[in-house]
Amino acid sequence: MSKIRIGIVGYGNLGKGVELAIRKNPDTALSFVATRRSPDSVKIATAGVPVYAYDDLKNHTDEADVVILCGGSATDLPHQTPELAKLFHVVDSFDTHARIPEHFAAVDAAAKETGHAAMISVGWDPGMFSLARLYGNCILPDGKDYTFWGKGVSQGHSDAIRRVKGVKNGKQYTCPVPEALEAVRSGAQPELTTRQKHTRLCYVVPEEGADLAQIEHDIKTMPNYFDEYDTTVNFITEEELLRDHAGIPHGGFVIRSGKTGANDEHTHVIEYSLKLDSNPEFTTSVLVAFARAIKRFADEKSFGCKTVFDIPPAYLSPLSGEDLRAHLL
Amino acid sequence: MSKIRIGIVGYGNLGKGVELAIRKNPDTALSFVATRRSPDSVKIATAGVPVYAYDDLKNHTDEADVVILCGGSATDLPHQTPELAKLFHVVDSFDTHARIPEHFAAVDAAAKETGHAAMISVGWDPGMFSLARLYGNCILPDGKDYTFWGKGVSQGHSDAIRRVKGVKNGKQYTCPVPEALEAVRSGAQPELTTRQKHTRLCYVVPEEGADLAQIEHDIKTMPNYFDEYDTTVNFITEEELLRDHAGIPHGGFVIRSGKTGANDEHTHVIEYSLKLDSNPEFTTSVLVAFARAIKRFADEKSFGCKTVFDIPPAYLSPLSGEDLRAHLL
Repeated sequence: MSKIRIGIVGYGNLGKGVELAIRKNPDTALSFVATRRSPDSVKIATAGVPVYAYDDLKNHTDEADVVILCGGSATDLPHQTPELAKLFHVVDSFDTHARIPEHFAAVDAAAKETGHAAMISVGWDPGMFSLARLYGNCILPDGKDYTFWGKGVSQGHSDAIRRVKGVKNGKQYTCPVPEALEAVRSGAQPELTTRQKHTRLCYVVPEEGADLAQIEHDIKTMPNYFDEYDTTVNFITEEELLRDHAGIPHGGFVIRSGKTGANDEHTHVIEYSLKLDSNPEFTTSVLVAFARAIKRFADEKSFGCKTVFDIPPAYLSPLSGEDLRAHLL
Repeated sequence: MSKIRIGIVGYGNLGKGVELAIRKNPDTALSFVATRRSPDSVKIATAGVPVYAYDDLKNHTDEADVVILCGGSATDLPHQTPELAKLFHVVDSFDTHARIPEHFAAVDAAAKETGHAAMISVGWDPGMFSLARLYGNCILPDGKDYTFWGKGVSQGHSDAIRRVKGVKNGKQYTCPVPEALEAVRSGAQPELTTRQKHTRLCYVVPEEGADLAQIEHDIKTMPNYFDEYDTTVNFITEEELLRDHAGIPHGGFVIRSGKTGANDEHTHVIEYSLKLDSNPEFTTSVLVAFARAIKRFADEKSFGCKTVFDIPPAYLSPLSGEDLRAHLL
């Protein structure tokens, strides 16, 4: 059987993660990496695989079965995914929840117009957490679901800290509140405010001579990012930051609880949780599994844009339906 | 929009659970109950719904969009599901893992021959736990998965206890071993024996004058059921059994842990768990959600037998793709 040839567009944390995930999936192979930097400046980890310029991709459309877009959701993917869905079967990890409908529409139109299969918002949230929410909602319609994130590094909040005056470097962890988690797990269906669900824990390296009280105040009162949370600010040295906070761990919990019975006397709790040492490497592990599904859709000529909700789970596996039924059902 | 008309075959715990689950899903309606007992002897909880004799079902094929089979896996479903797949679109909860391939083949042939959509082995294991295993295997191919059951009542083991000489009544709980669960959650991928994963906890009501030591010995040494486990036998009165052990709770855990990274330096743990007050009511909540999917397949004329692995998750929901993307993705 020939391998699924995967192209990577963008060679940051996600691009490098896809490259590693391909090594764990023997039915896939890396066919190229594309970048908007100068291709000569990008050294990839896989020998013998070409690096192309993004603008040159139109000359390589026959070299990949599926292209995985590894750019950012803020500025890259909104134009790259529709653009590349005209050239390739594509998968992205677009994660700006509020803008998913418009992104879906743009990718769907481009893919249908040119006969490609596409998939957006693949990863763990959106992605596996979305699936946990959907399954939970459908099985227990009389219920309530809760998503908790962490403990893990939030890139957006870490960036926000680093923009504060007097801050040299910093990292922010989002932490679920243990009491809130326990209340939800009990099946009690509590009403929880933003503050009751998560806390924010910051490790900040100040510039020399900076006003620490002012930094702490500026972080804790920052609108949208911190003002609605109980935030802790710890000042540490650059050495401590690099030694103790170099990783990108993350994770979280999707919990659905609901009632059944003639008098709603029975409570059920469904919990899906992730504990991840590397957020980008897990995200890209999900991306490669779903790339397999997009190859199947492309082979079936089922074109247009999909999400994780549209994928029969069997399409994620290299095994036959017969093997899956015999060994995993 | 017209409701999905559901027929129930078999009116035990599962049949009654489907009847209750239909009330929680406003896009579904109960159209009939069928039984192999005398229809007059079966009083159902829903007013105005007919009870038919099993053998009379061939005269009512236009009255249900989907029939949910609520018989037992040992003797009912192996012949009923293929039989009824010739008359209706059907869903069952066949749970004898080892015999799934032959059951699938029989149902698939019957359904294809007569133009019906069918689905077997829907519930939580097989069912939602199978999905957790499949997603976990596909996302973290370099890993290991573990399924733990309980704490919950095992019907088969409770029946086995009641067949022991001198036993009047009894109930058996399957319990995961907390230390094993923790070892798996740590990502350590331990090798665990049957004895290390679960214990068995029995509550036994002895007949008057029975030899308690003999009962305990007979239970603990029973092949297949108890001999490979650490088993605890507690003797209680019939009143205590009825008061403290009347429910049918169950649940469990599917945990997949795996490695990523250039040197396998990152560990990830995916955990899916269920805590259920009523095993049959949760199982039937799953059945009704998947009946919705079978209606979709029937409308698309996609005939033959499916399993949970073949169902796009969106098919479980009454919501449109647009609504799902906007609110659950």
